[in-house]
Amino acid sequence: MKISVRLVFTYIRDNMNNEFLIEEKGFDKRAIKHYEGLFCQGNGYVHVRASHEDSIYGVRQDDEYDRKPANVTLEKPRETLSKYGTFIPGVTGVHPYLKDEIINLPYPFMTEVFLNGDKVDITGNNIENYNRSLDLYSGTLTRTIEVVDKAYRVRICHERVLSMDCKHLALEKTTISLLEGKCHLGLVTGVDARVRTNGFNHLVKIETGKEADRTYLKALTNGGNTVDYRLRTAAKEMDLIPGADDSRCYYTGEKNLGGSCKEISLEKVVAITTDRDFDKFEDNTGLGYEDLKKNSDKVWAKIWDDCDIVIKGDDKTQQALRMAIYHLIRNATDDDRVAICAKGHSGEGYFGHYFWDTEINMLPFYLYEMPDKAKNLVKFRYNTLDGAIKNAKLYGYDGARYAWESSVSGEEECANWQYADNEIHVTADIVYAMINYVRMTSDQEFYKECVIPVMIETAKYWLQRMDKRKDGSLELLGVMGPDEYLPFTRNNAYTNKLVRFSLEETAKAIEKYNVPVERDFLLSVKYAAENLKGYAPLSDNERVIKQCDEFEEYADIDFGQIWTDRSKCFGNHISQEKNYRSKALKQADVLEMMMLFPHEFSTETLKANFDYYLPITTHDSSLSAYVHGLLAARLGRTEIAERFLKIVDDIDMDSNRRGAEEGVHIANFGGLWQMVVFGFAGLSYSMWDDDISIKPALPAGWKSLEFKTLYKGNKYKVTIGKDTKEIVKLS
Amino acid sequence: MKISVRLVFTYIRDNMNNEFLIEEKGFDKRAIKHYEGLFCQGNGYVHVRASHEDSIYGVRQDDEYDRKPANVTLEKPRETLSKYGTFIPGVTGVHPYLKDEIINLPYPFMTEVFLNGDKVDITGNNIENYNRSLDLYSGTLTRTIEVVDKAYRVRICHERVLSMDCKHLALEKTTISLLEGKCHLGLVTGVDARVRTNGFNHLVKIETGKEADRTYLKALTNGGNTVDYRLRTAAKEMDLIPGADDSRCYYTGEKNLGGSCKEISLEKVVAITTDRDFDKFEDNTGLGYEDLKKNSDKVWAKIWDDCDIVIKGDDKTQQALRMAIYHLIRNATDDDRVAICAKGHSGEGYFGHYFWDTEINMLPFYLYEMPDKAKNLVKFRYNTLDGAIKNAKLYGYDGARYAWESSVSGEEECANWQYADNEIHVTADIVYAMINYVRMTSDQEFYKECVIPVMIETAKYWLQRMDKRKDGSLELLGVMGPDEYLPFTRNNAYTNKLVRFSLEETAKAIEKYNVPVERDFLLSVKYAAENLKGYAPLSDNERVIKQCDEFEEYADIDFGQIWTDRSKCFGNHISQEKNYRSKALKQADVLEMMMLFPHEFSTETLKANFDYYLPITTHDSSLSAYVHGLLAARLGRTEIAERFLKIVDDIDMDSNRRGAEEGVHIANFGGLWQMVVFGFAGLSYSMWDDDISIKPALPAGWKSLEFKTLYKGNKYKVTIGKDTKEIVKLS
Repeated sequence: MKISVRLVFTYIRDNMNNEFLIEEKGFDKRAIKHYEGLFCQGNGYVHVRASHEDSIYGVRQDDEYDRKPANVTLEKPRETLSKYGTFIPGVTGVHPYLKDEIINLPYPFMTEVFLNGDKVDITGNNIENYNRSLDLYSGTLTRTIEVVDKAYRVRICHERVLSMDCKHLALEKTTISLLEGKCHLGLVTGVDARVRTNGFNHLVKIETGKEADRTYLKALTNGGNTVDYRLRTAAKEMDLIPGADDSRCYYTGEKNLGGSCKEISLEKVVAITTDRDFDKFEDNTGLGYEDLKKNSDKVWAKIWDDCDIVIKGDDKTQQALRMAIYHLIRNATDDDRVAICAKGHSGEGYFGHYFWDTEINMLPFYLYEMPDKAKNLVKFRYNTLDGAIKNAKLYGYDGARYAWESSVSGEEECANWQYADNEIHVTADIVYAMINYVRMTSDQEFYKECVIPVMIETAKYWLQRMDKRKDGSLELLGVMGPDEYLPFTRNNAYTNKLVRFSLEETAKAIEKYNVPVERDFLLSVKYAAENLKGYAPLSDNERVIKQCDEFEEYADIDFGQIWTDRSKCFGNHISQEKNYRSKALKQADVLEMMMLFPHEFSTETLKANFDYYLPITTHDSSLSAYVHGLLAARLGRTEIAERFLKIVDDIDMDSNRRGAEEGVHIANFGGLWQMVVFGFAGLSYSMWDDDISIKPALPAGWKSLEFKTLYKGNKYKVTIGKDTKEIVKLS
Repeated sequence: MKISVRLVFTYIRDNMNNEFLIEEKGFDKRAIKHYEGLFCQGNGYVHVRASHEDSIYGVRQDDEYDRKPANVTLEKPRETLSKYGTFIPGVTGVHPYLKDEIINLPYPFMTEVFLNGDKVDITGNNIENYNRSLDLYSGTLTRTIEVVDKAYRVRICHERVLSMDCKHLALEKTTISLLEGKCHLGLVTGVDARVRTNGFNHLVKIETGKEADRTYLKALTNGGNTVDYRLRTAAKEMDLIPGADDSRCYYTGEKNLGGSCKEISLEKVVAITTDRDFDKFEDNTGLGYEDLKKNSDKVWAKIWDDCDIVIKGDDKTQQALRMAIYHLIRNATDDDRVAICAKGHSGEGYFGHYFWDTEINMLPFYLYEMPDKAKNLVKFRYNTLDGAIKNAKLYGYDGARYAWESSVSGEEECANWQYADNEIHVTADIVYAMINYVRMTSDQEFYKECVIPVMIETAKYWLQRMDKRKDGSLELLGVMGPDEYLPFTRNNAYTNKLVRFSLEETAKAIEKYNVPVERDFLLSVKYAAENLKGYAPLSDNERVIKQCDEFEEYADIDFGQIWTDRSKCFGNHISQEKNYRSKALKQADVLEMMMLFPHEFSTETLKANFDYYLPITTHDSSLSAYVHGLLAARLGRTEIAERFLKIVDDIDMDSNRRGAEEGVHIANFGGLWQMVVFGFAGLSYSMWDDDISIKPALPAGWKSLEFKTLYKGNKYKVTIGKDTKEIVKLS
């Protein structure tokens, strides 16, 4: 059944797992790149965009061009039908214009089919019965097509997965069936290193070759890493001949289809390892595709058993939310030397850099559902404290200043100065997130070993970053808050609040644990926590908190006149010059602060601020809509919340909008999860409340909402119906 | 006689022209690039840096590299011993990172000498009695060296000039004299296209060859221009053989020096033409070096007769001022399709772009000394009105918005958004300059044909650029004033004042000349001229004008603690991030306004502002010191004025500082002229006073000051002594 004319997904209920099946309906050439991002597969170790197995005529994956820094929100990425993406978090290198970026590695799922000598091309007009779907439940991508010709009709079915059990393995199965006539089949399957990242070749050396039962491809990156691919294949009824050229390792085979031989099944196992791996993996079990796939499926099923959320009565949100959880699971990492980049490793957008998105938008999912993975994420910030210290030094400050766009080393990679210089709240966001983790898990060891050092070093930075006034008050000048449309403000409410919180917690920690610091330092931290200017009201509305000191001085603008095409960003309708001096917010700012400190603001205050900022917020950032939706739900304004839910659902899922082309908006996925759990279910925050509670405000159409969650060491099942609510302690 | 240990120039008085002789004393490898800029030659049509005739071992002029946009004031340019520069204003092309830039064209003064097969290298340790000087009076560059060896002592003398009479001709004479022993002489003299501009090759095709009595080199630029060099030579007692290779056209010759042949004299004439030229020049007079040089000398002498300023009692300033006037003369152009770039076409710095420097800093010299050249400069802005209209459109505005960094088309070439977007005062500066020209010359035809259209179009822009407040007042938000260390201010005093003036003049012109515009437009212009917020006082000092509305909110900083090495810019000691939020000015801002509107501010007010801003102004911009010096002189604070005079004198002239490496600071040269004429002589401004007058305030050591000037159609001679002053009308 179709759920919306704008959505091309269908939602099938006729077998056990099909509630998890997201189907690409029909084939639209213009949506290839979108689905490459949306259907991206991964297992925390490696991620591969859902590019077609066969290359596309006229599309070169090794096209080189100069991609230069630009305002990322409004950038027009290079247009191309398809873009491969194979990413291993941590494998990065310097791009000539974009600083350090994640490297698009060789593509492991290349399988080209030739019928009577003609290469099958997915964009050709001889393709029928196209069907592709991603099974979220097992992370399996399946594509079926039929190729027709006067002489034959052949069905080709590809199935592939990145094993969740053995994370070094990429598994692929190709089944080719002759349905009518006869034909000659040719096959090339392998690993293809003809790839570039944002137009640049990071692979400085490629070695390929054959071994007894494998072919291999080894790439050396300009970041100094080696990445190894070892490929084995098996096909009944067809001999496979190993081969290798400058940039590929592969197997080839051929067969006449017809008579008794009507079907060929090809299994492929690619073992991927790097010099960064903790384990020395070797693919030596000899297991075939089916067994390896089963092992992977089992791990996926176990994770889903914990993390799933079941919504009855809103198929669209159910699908979007499962997609969100799928991508969050896919990004859950065992490696605390990396975090989750802004595109969730599903595209080259944002260059694989780490933003505050991880801490504020994604972390809650992991905290409540996969706390061991949450620990890796907060640990990553501790591990990159040295990078943050370097950043501070580059600005002439002591202490630690976390990067607006962090590399794996923690160093600043943002190429636009106004963000790099001024969007300093990330440093306080990280402390907030660490404390959030500790309050959920009571992991005191982590607190003492990791959080306190981060608090001490970042406090040193804050003490130097603040300007003292004659009356003794402290200010943060030259600041860009979460709202990036005001790049240069005084005492941004969000930033100052987060910094005050961070300094208060630092002072408490020093005193509680007798941290050996100079007494003067402690006094300075306490003084700063008390005297850094807090949020202040508008002059004509006491309840409304000013986004920044001079907020009222920005110009009012006529949105109706300027923003004529609402299908496009507001930012596309106005010059940056005018935007920067006008009262048009890119995203929630004061409201974001209220979401993070819910206990501090009365419902009345929240309402007043919601009403004031809503009409002047453009939501050009994908981090905005969910905050508004979540707060609207908590305020019981369900209709408004539903309006935002639709936006949040659609950001990546709407194939007309094609939002996932450069990679999915993983922070928005984290936001969708938060919106459902903290907004509609009204779950208490473990950051602020010791006891679990819910205060549901379901959308009108929702019949029920069910999920499991951890809360301060216990596991619960939450079930909410039209007029019922229940929290059951599971362990 | 040496005048200062810091200066390596000597000032010789023993023949008629030697007061104009600037000598490079001794040879310092580290100063090669500085003197290339400082001794740059030119004639308004073509400019050639004073690179040595012989190439330097290990220095490649065709080195390619990626030069990316950076904060120009604080940029560290690529280090190299020498950098050629041959510029024809208007011959520009697109650089991959820096937008449209002036192209460094093939070098016409290549002359390499081989003695017994060894190439003479100016950095070699076999060079003695090095002597190089620039004769400002004739624009002649002369270099003499002796090359010593066991077998010989040879003197090589180069002399060269770009003809001021026939502007297409580059003239060069080389005299080689055997002083001791004997040796074999080899010579290659020609035009060398192995050049790059900011690391990039703009020359897409080079054609070289031989004709009956010439060799030639023709270059096609990536801007679509062709540039032709035709080379003829003559040498007594030596045959010259024409030759050409991929990137050079030349003549070679050889001779055994010794016995009766002890001296070889080589004359070289290079005719340079482009497809942009108004005239179809052919070098067909057959005149030799000496005659051509004499013709050029005569023109130079005539110009100096009008433009010279004689200072007795301050040799250092006399030299600096003559150097300033020399470079201003060199840049005076007959072509109103170009203006004067920020480096006065003596280097690749600022990429040949046109800034407000032309209008505010340089134009006064031309107005008072060479008004026909002044007309070309203001006409250029009219000619590029279409470019300014394009700029406005790109921002979504009607009307015309002049570029912060203008190309020859008037389009914006500034690669840093904060300047391009926010430093909007240039649009009003241009109107001010045009009116300044008209008030000096009474050129009503120009006023009606050019100034009024520019005023109308820029007024349209301003009407849209302003934000209206609820009380009906108008504001300019998001503005960078002349002080580039506060990039994002509200109602910058300088900018608002210039814009108000521009709008007032526009309204007057519409009414006086019945310009056919909509009545609503006229009313809007009048309303804006009255209601745009004017300058306002500081809260605790009524006399002091705030640089911008929020000026008092910026942080005070401790200059002593931060600015530890005063030989370097303040900006090198502080991060841009901290700088942008602190009360540290890059240059005069409110004071610059007071300089431009002297009648509007009382001495008391000027003093109060001078005293307030002086301690917080860093003069990191070369446009700052002269403004302070000029105003100090007008205030009668001669000691402070002298302090600034020293800074202004030294910016390019101090060979230890090596300020001219990337090209001279031509705006500072214009500033030095203004400082002497409007400051120390206290000449009235023709912009504001109908009658000429002077109010001298000479530095203590000055015995006299003498110069000629035009003033509202008449020519005067001004003579100022210790206690005397005189204005004599000459015509």
